[in-house]
Amino acid sequence: MNAPGPADCPFCRELEALPDAEVVWHFPHSVALLGTWQFYHGYSILVARRHAAELSALTDAVRQAYLEEMCLLARAIEKSYRPHKLNYELLGNRVPHLHWHLFPRYLDDPDRLRPVWLAVAEAERDPAVRRRLETGPQERSATVAGLRLQLQDLDAPCA
Amino acid sequence: MNAPGPADCPFCRELEALPDAEVVWHFPHSVALLGTWQFYHGYSILVARRHAAELSALTDAVRQAYLEEMCLLARAIEKSYRPHKLNYELLGNRVPHLHWHLFPRYLDDPDRLRPVWLAVAEAERDPAVRRRLETGPQERSATVAGLRLQLQDLDAPCA
Repeated sequence: MNAPGPADCPFCRELEALPDAEVVWHFPHSVALLGTWQFYHGYSILVARRHAAELSALTDAVRQAYLEEMCLLARAIEKSYRPHKLNYELLGNRVPHLHWHLFPRYLDDPDRLRPVWLAVAEAERDPAVRRRLETGPQERSATVAGLRLQLQDLDAPCA
Repeated sequence: MNAPGPADCPFCRELEALPDAEVVWHFPHSVALLGTWQFYHGYSILVARRHAAELSALTDAVRQAYLEEMCLLARAIEKSYRPHKLNYELLGNRVPHLHWHLFPRYLDDPDRLRPVWLAVAEAERDPAVRRRLETGPQERSATVAGLRLQLQDLDAPCA
């Protein structure tokens, strides 16, 4: 489980200089950012504040709190945009600093039965697909505002 | 969040008639099964016992317990096979009954920087790729036995 030191870690650097407009929410153990691919409207990334490559590197208390924060963010996405399905992914293959991808899936997505990564790989090759996947049904600032509104109400655990 | 009733759900049916050889572990809230793609040695699927399409449909207590079980299974995979990275994915796009995919990633995988689904999509088209991804470094029964051995020791939370 080889993790770069914080000095080499893009997320550690990013957390120090976040543009406020892209921050959905500051949780005690993580920061929620609006993701690039807003075709998946509400797609957010939940970056752990502490540098670690694996969940198993966290203490019980921090890991449980981080997972609760994931759940709160998920609820905010569900309440804001009523997706057909929500996909949770913790990968870190390129950037081994804990971050959850929360991808809402919608019925009007012809690829809704497949993981998003097939479309994202296409977007990395094809600028037209990239533009399609980057474009949500509203401005990014409005999506951030919508999620924040829900998160203001969700200060208790999920159920 | 449209979920089929349990009568239509492949996982609900599967949980009732599991071949013992493929069951890695019975947890209180979930069952761990060895996954198909053993190129990702130790790849397991953690199926919730209760039918639900989304984490947010569970009570706090059940959701937290299910996530702890995910973490225990992850630790067993890490301790057994020392992967370079562990990928956690809860999708349910095809089968909307809660199940975590735990994909260990290894340094000798030339695609280790990418999500597994690109290789899996290739395997669905190409029988040679399918055989490669289905084949692990040991028999499936030995992998199940290895994971069970670790899980016997891991009856406390992860940290």
